[in-house]
Amino acid sequence: MIDTRRIHHCRACGSPVDYSVPADDNRERAVCTVCNTIHYENPINVVGTVPTWGEQVLLCRRAIEPRLGFWTLPAGFLELGETSAEGALRETDEEAGARVELQGLFSVMNVVAVGQIHLYYRAALRDVDFAPGPESLEARLFTEAEIPWDELAFRTVRTTLERYFADRREGRFGLHCVDFR
Amino acid sequence: MIDTRRIHHCRACGSPVDYSVPADDNRERAVCTVCNTIHYENPINVVGTVPTWGEQVLLCRRAIEPRLGFWTLPAGFLELGETSAEGALRETDEEAGARVELQGLFSVMNVVAVGQIHLYYRAALRDVDFAPGPESLEARLFTEAEIPWDELAFRTVRTTLERYFADRREGRFGLHCVDFR
Repeated sequence: MIDTRRIHHCRACGSPVDYSVPADDNRERAVCTVCNTIHYENPINVVGTVPTWGEQVLLCRRAIEPRLGFWTLPAGFLELGETSAEGALRETDEEAGARVELQGLFSVMNVVAVGQIHLYYRAALRDVDFAPGPESLEARLFTEAEIPWDELAFRTVRTTLERYFADRREGRFGLHCVDFR
Repeated sequence: MIDTRRIHHCRACGSPVDYSVPADDNRERAVCTVCNTIHYENPINVVGTVPTWGEQVLLCRRAIEPRLGFWTLPAGFLELGETSAEGALRETDEEAGARVELQGLFSVMNVVAVGQIHLYYRAALRDVDFAPGPESLEARLFTEAEIPWDELAFRTVRTTLERYFADRREGRFGLHCVDFR
C-alpha cells in the first residue's frame, strides 16, 4: 500500500507535522504543528504511448529500477506545465528516441496501490530512426507474435498491449478503462 | 502560472531546500540541502460526474471559493486509495448528496496553468433524493435550455456540458479530450 505518512516536516516552515483531520475535511492530512499548513497528497499521472510501425510495436528494455531489464512501452511521470499528450510525446522521445504522431487516448488505468493513473495514447512512428535513451537498454520493434509477454515490466503495459492487439484484430480502437488495486 | 517553487523545507528532515537539477534529471526540483531528498511536484486529478435524470442534468451551486455562488458539476480532487471512478462517485455524494450509476468516462481535460487533469464520467441518478452537501449552496436539475451558461464556475464544466448536449443530440457519446492552458 501507499505510505500515506511520508511527510514528517512542513514544506513551508520546516517544523514537524502531525497527522490529523482538518476542520471541514474528512481525511487525515499532514498538518504543520507551527504554521498549520495542510499538506495534501494525491495520485499522480504516468503518460506514455503505444508506438507502432505498420504491424510492429516499439518497446524499450528498462535500464533502471524498478523492473530493470524488463520490457515496457515508453512512459513516465507527467510534469507540471505540460498536457498529458505533450508528456506522452516527451517520454517517447526520452526513452525510445522516437518521434510519433498521436492517434488518440487508448487506455486510462488506475493503479490504486501506488497512487497512479496511467494514460496511454496510440501513436504512429514518423520514422524508424529511434534509439534507446539513458533510461533504456534497448528499443526494438516487435510483431504481436514476438512480444515478450513474460518479460513485460508492468501490468498496465501488458493490459494496454493485450487490448491494443485485440482492438486491431477487430478493426476498431476503443477507450479502455481498467483498474488495478 | 503554477508556483513551482512553493517548497521551502524538506518533508523528510525539515532543512531548507535548494532548487536544482538532480543528476540524471532534466528539470529543477526542490532538493534538500542536508539529506538530499528530492521533492517532485506533478499535476493532480479532479474527478466528477455529469449526473442526469431523463433530460435533466444535476448542477451544484458552490458554497466555497474559488467561484463561490457559481454553478458546477459535482467534482473534486482524487484521493489516494481510490480509483477515478470511486472518487467521482464520492464527490457526487459529498457535493450533491446524490447516488448515481456511472456510464463511462466522458471528458479528459488538461488544465495546464493549474497543474490538473479533470476527468468527468456520465452518470445516471438512481433517484431524485439529492441534497446539497456542505460545499454546495444548492443542488438542482436543469434542462439544456435552463443551464445557467453565464454562471458556470469553470471552463471544464462548460466544455463538458457543451459536449454532453451535443453528443446527446447526435445519439452517441464519445470521449472528449480537451486541453486548456
